[in-house]
Amino acid sequence: METDRVTIVDVAARAGVAISSASAALNGRPGVSEATRARVQRAASELGYVPSLRGRSLSTKRAFAIGFVLQRSLDVLESDPFFASFIGGIEQALSPRGYALVLHMGTNERDTENRYRELAANRRVDGVLLNELRVDDPRLPLMNEIGMPAVGIVPSAEGFELPCVRQPSAPGVAAMVRHLVDQGHTNIAHVSGPARFVHARERVEAWRAEMARHGLRADTLIPGDFTYQGGRAAADAISQMVDRPTAVVCANDLAAVGLIIRAQELGWDVPGDLSVGGYDGIAMGTYIRPTLSTVQAAPRRVAAAAANLLLDVIEDPAGSAGRVVDLAPGQLIVRHSTGKCPK
Amino acid sequence: METDRVTIVDVAARAGVAISSASAALNGRPGVSEATRARVQRAASELGYVPSLRGRSLSTKRAFAIGFVLQRSLDVLESDPFFASFIGGIEQALSPRGYALVLHMGTNERDTENRYRELAANRRVDGVLLNELRVDDPRLPLMNEIGMPAVGIVPSAEGFELPCVRQPSAPGVAAMVRHLVDQGHTNIAHVSGPARFVHARERVEAWRAEMARHGLRADTLIPGDFTYQGGRAAADAISQMVDRPTAVVCANDLAAVGLIIRAQELGWDVPGDLSVGGYDGIAMGTYIRPTLSTVQAAPRRVAAAAANLLLDVIEDPAGSAGRVVDLAPGQLIVRHSTGKCPK
Repeated sequence: METDRVTIVDVAARAGVAISSASAALNGRPGVSEATRARVQRAASELGYVPSLRGRSLSTKRAFAIGFVLQRSLDVLESDPFFASFIGGIEQALSPRGYALVLHMGTNERDTENRYRELAANRRVDGVLLNELRVDDPRLPLMNEIGMPAVGIVPSAEGFELPCVRQPSAPGVAAMVRHLVDQGHTNIAHVSGPARFVHARERVEAWRAEMARHGLRADTLIPGDFTYQGGRAAADAISQMVDRPTAVVCANDLAAVGLIIRAQELGWDVPGDLSVGGYDGIAMGTYIRPTLSTVQAAPRRVAAAAANLLLDVIEDPAGSAGRVVDLAPGQLIVRHSTGKCPK
Repeated sequence: METDRVTIVDVAARAGVAISSASAALNGRPGVSEATRARVQRAASELGYVPSLRGRSLSTKRAFAIGFVLQRSLDVLESDPFFASFIGGIEQALSPRGYALVLHMGTNERDTENRYRELAANRRVDGVLLNELRVDDPRLPLMNEIGMPAVGIVPSAEGFELPCVRQPSAPGVAAMVRHLVDQGHTNIAHVSGPARFVHARERVEAWRAEMARHGLRADTLIPGDFTYQGGRAAADAISQMVDRPTAVVCANDLAAVGLIIRAQELGWDVPGDLSVGGYDGIAMGTYIRPTLSTVQAAPRRVAAAAANLLLDVIEDPAGSAGRVVDLAPGQLIVRHSTGKCPK
């Protein structure tokens, strides 16, 4: 079939550009406009052009793949739509630049670390993405030890030595607290993620700081785990409290959904008896009743930015060392799960 | 760091088994019990053992990776939890057998086909999974042309020449229709998936056949597309009908969720005015109100079976040609979105 194979010459002809431009466009190199890049990619797609990985690999010694290990139990994965958005964003960046995604799941922290070690040792990928960073995350010294290009997704770049995409969640959490204070709430609880995660800690601190700013006590911290079941457990915990909060800020949407559903099972009206706010902006938040007030963090956009930065690091290590890409913080979206404080 | 590297000898010692058994267990070869395999895998994980891909690849000429292209628009992906379950199932099978998943997204049919072509041409993977097969699917001749091991996920193996995992959806759809007939419904509509998909056609036929079995006319076929928006559009279509159905069987859960939410916006009571049944068994079906009656098809189990079969085909092509693995059909789960026919 080699004789029928569509070549870069065919693609360039169809797109009406020089061969060098077609090559630059398809290999993600600079020097072509976005319009040209789009036209070349459309021509390549229409002709069924398959770039020769062998040719590219021989000249660059690259695998043309990046690695990502998602740490989730398989049970949680099924109900967590965050994941699909995130993977979609990675793919959105890789596809036009001709890279593939090698995806693993880590069932626990050690397993996750081992899988990163494996990806690196086998040179199956040219770099990796690191998300959901833990305090003293063992993956950071590991990347240094192995010399594997890596990009982190972090709420704050402070003390973070690798290139990273930074999206603070504090402004969104603070906006949610302010919104609840505006509705007359003073006893506002927080359902957190596990304290070992940097982004979970950041959200706890943001809730605390904003409460303090309004002269309110941040007493009711309910430890959670970002899951639907954890949200349900938080509702049960609240039902046992003597001085019940009238509003809850959850560290993510899925926990907020679990909390709302369990609260309704317990006979409470949401938001009449209890206001509940989330974080992430998953589609499911518009399917439940009441619809979920949340912070739209756009995981697809975050993942696409991180994957693009990683490809920049891989293709130009010197030019990208220590780079930080800043993304706008998530925006508050007020729907129907938050309302006035009950008298 | 090579001197510190954990070897198969260390793993065997820790697991208390022979080196040959440890090797067989870690490489997914037969001859060791499931208990031994589990013990060896635990020891490997605890020690941070990284199998040498280069060693394995040199001796077998394999990439130790499989490919999968999911065809979804990025917008649909964010709201469709089917995907995460499916990927989780693949990973569940690959991980203990030491293979990686190379994941692509295809934004349309041509793009999807091109990505399979690319995976094959580049020998980046040892085989591919094919799901959501279309009528006259171009990927089948493509796999034959390229000589790439492939496993299909199909409702029926009739006329399907590749090894496949077969899970018929007809029994589940028929059970849903019967359940609605038992509740007194006679005008039962179907919201289908796109007719180019084999599994969408199978569900239409199952609905038609079961209606005929009860002497009922299957007049109301509403073309859908498996999406939430498609479900909403189906509710709008029903609102325009003179002879409105009192029940709807949807080809998947996400469309059923969209239909229920739009029906409620139109002021109808579900199931008081309209009963709605789904198919798939996604977690979201228990989060919405009313909770969704559905058919639990267990996509994670289907994907794991398909990935395991693909590895068998890769490792023993002669022994696996034309193999069909049968999975139990999905089971009807009656929740609260279906009820008695209104008078």
